[in-house]
Amino acid sequence: MENLENSTDCKETVSPLNNSGSTLNSTVSCHDGKAMGFVLVHAGAGYHSESKAKEYKHVCKRACQRAVDRLRAGGLALEAVTAALIELEDSPFTNAGTGSNLNLSGEIECDASIMDGKSLNYGAVGALSGIKNPVLVARRLLSETQKGKLSAGRIPPCFLVGKGAEQWAISHGIPACPTEKMTTKFSLSGYKRNKRKMELAEQIETKRKRQSCGHENDFGCLEPVGDIMVEGEENNSARLDTVGAVVVDREGNVAAAVSSGGLAMKHPGRVGQAAHYGCGCWAENARDVSLYSTAVSTSGSGEHLIRTMLARECSTAMQAENAHQALLEAMQNKFISSPFLAGEDCVLGGVIVLRCCTCGEAQRSEDIQALLVEFLWSHTTESMCVGYMSAQDSKARTHISRLPPGAVAGQSLAIEGGVCRLGTVSD
Amino acid sequence: MENLENSTDCKETVSPLNNSGSTLNSTVSCHDGKAMGFVLVHAGAGYHSESKAKEYKHVCKRACQRAVDRLRAGGLALEAVTAALIELEDSPFTNAGTGSNLNLSGEIECDASIMDGKSLNYGAVGALSGIKNPVLVARRLLSETQKGKLSAGRIPPCFLVGKGAEQWAISHGIPACPTEKMTTKFSLSGYKRNKRKMELAEQIETKRKRQSCGHENDFGCLEPVGDIMVEGEENNSARLDTVGAVVVDREGNVAAAVSSGGLAMKHPGRVGQAAHYGCGCWAENARDVSLYSTAVSTSGSGEHLIRTMLARECSTAMQAENAHQALLEAMQNKFISSPFLAGEDCVLGGVIVLRCCTCGEAQRSEDIQALLVEFLWSHTTESMCVGYMSAQDSKARTHISRLPPGAVAGQSLAIEGGVCRLGTVSD
Repeated sequence: MENLENSTDCKETVSPLNNSGSTLNSTVSCHDGKAMGFVLVHAGAGYHSESKAKEYKHVCKRACQRAVDRLRAGGLALEAVTAALIELEDSPFTNAGTGSNLNLSGEIECDASIMDGKSLNYGAVGALSGIKNPVLVARRLLSETQKGKLSAGRIPPCFLVGKGAEQWAISHGIPACPTEKMTTKFSLSGYKRNKRKMELAEQIETKRKRQSCGHENDFGCLEPVGDIMVEGEENNSARLDTVGAVVVDREGNVAAAVSSGGLAMKHPGRVGQAAHYGCGCWAENARDVSLYSTAVSTSGSGEHLIRTMLARECSTAMQAENAHQALLEAMQNKFISSPFLAGEDCVLGGVIVLRCCTCGEAQRSEDIQALLVEFLWSHTTESMCVGYMSAQDSKARTHISRLPPGAVAGQSLAIEGGVCRLGTVSD
Repeated sequence: MENLENSTDCKETVSPLNNSGSTLNSTVSCHDGKAMGFVLVHAGAGYHSESKAKEYKHVCKRACQRAVDRLRAGGLALEAVTAALIELEDSPFTNAGTGSNLNLSGEIECDASIMDGKSLNYGAVGALSGIKNPVLVARRLLSETQKGKLSAGRIPPCFLVGKGAEQWAISHGIPACPTEKMTTKFSLSGYKRNKRKMELAEQIETKRKRQSCGHENDFGCLEPVGDIMVEGEENNSARLDTVGAVVVDREGNVAAAVSSGGLAMKHPGRVGQAAHYGCGCWAENARDVSLYSTAVSTSGSGEHLIRTMLARECSTAMQAENAHQALLEAMQNKFISSPFLAGEDCVLGGVIVLRCCTCGEAQRSEDIQALLVEFLWSHTTESMCVGYMSAQDSKARTHISRLPPGAVAGQSLAIEGGVCRLGTVSD
């Protein structure tokens, strides 16, 4: 049997496939790593312009570094995933925290959630204004849950929204942050542009209805107005969606988190998948019948991700033998062709997935820990920006995955990933 | 083969069982019915005092009648379930709509959701104030989703919270209702009593901490303060939780809905299972591999129902052959003993479940429709008040299901139900 001490075995697991209805890419990824953990992050499934590619990659790199810093300092998955999210939220280029899309009223309302695969505890905030890092509130809700009941036997909340969430955060020591400080020139210019588009679209719609006099179909050839959540001009941060991260730590615990400013021009009070249990993120350590620990974070059109409960579906699928095939099938059958989205011809979203198991050889000795980590991403959007890093890597690798030329966003998918074997003598 | 024309076959399906860890009851229920539909409602899993039993039963009866009125008038499941919910919300005795529990700030904030098994569309509102019937807003969100995209390609929201939800409702023609009109003498007296309890509990806690000086365990014998969500004095409406209904219509479509004022003394902005996809209600028509149409509505401790995603879990379980056994196992394995509630020794909740399939004989002719409807309820709370009625019944039957003497709430369960065969010549 192979001695896993200081093992640095790395393999490519993803090879190009071509299934009907899907378009597949592959990347080679190969890491050296000891069993101190691994992080995979994304800066949204949407459209990442070439001109801004450097910025997106850079924030993913920094987020990986923050997570790995925590892992190296002995932190567990939950701490590391929070650190990654803070970095992703603080970037003015991502649609989360600072730089979030503005809603119809020109305000920022954020959704975020976090899940701990070890305790299966969960915390979420929705439509939260005035807090710089929504993930910190979700994390704090999770921590408070773990402390047990409140006075007089009250069960602590796992999900808070709106003004109440903001007040709770402040009363728990998380500082308030004026909306102006979280608004960037990109989010503001995107808002103004989208507002003009909406007004134009509504004028055309009104005109169409007036002219049609009950014969609306006569005007079916109306020029379509661009989908402000997907298409748009360069520098339009409104194109991007949710950010997220998945982590495995030295003990093999997984955690997942997600954060989003939501759809551009959303109605105030709208809550997307990032605050929906089972939809925005999922993390479950291996137990009983589950061989693998799995962690998932999603991004894209919130309502589609909610109705398909995509994070949990992908997590469940990851118990199959072939991770790549399982994710491909989940994205095709549980998302693009989901019966829950039967009327939709354009299903936009993306996921990052991590699964890991303890290598059999390592069980020979308690001193040796070895983890086999498989990491994947898949998206039906034009592109998805990801970064990944093991705790032994000197720097993160980043990548903007794109649908191949000719593939139709919302109907095709890309899937990529790699595998990393982490082996070391435990301390 | 049996001629199902005007069939009124009814059978008892539920027989007493005794599994380790669970306590089971059974009831005989037997209806005459034609295939115009069936409704099952509940007025909360919690504690229903004997002195108020008549009121609870009465509101369940009226809710069934409202649903059946719609079914008889040709309405489909979605309309009927909404009608039932409005009646349940309007009762000052239930913790939903009028008479809802007050939160920490003395305000009413309601959660509600609705799901259509035919389209699989869904609508939900959370922490909603100032609207008399939260279910109407959820229903309207669902309807708007079905109309397709908003101007400029925006996806309509399926979940709105707080002030934004209230504004959306009013802008869609749902009238505002002052909180004072929704507050009852019961909810107000419950609030005052709970506030005193909390203050007392916090004083004792502070005293305990001060005296212990780092030896908190020395005071482990502190008299426990009553759980204000479960126990309490007579007339305390705060004991009850969520209300809900499940319906099947003449076409075999199912729908489910749920509405709740949430836990008494909850933090403002707290959203419970009634507004959580997959947790508060679920409805799925039969399709492909799913032989049965299923509809579920849950009640109880919101955070427990969220983390176990109980509505969807019960719906999935209902595809097994034996509905009663499947629900029993789901309540035991996916709720009481769920790994998602590993640290909890008292898991409080209840479900109503309906499943139906088209009888084989009926498929001989398009003119004949026949539905076999199985309906069940199960709870780990002290009691659960239910009502049920087929569209051919002259009046609803109601029942307060209780755990048998000696059974421990939160650790044991009761399960009851019946079966109804609806056969008729279609119109």
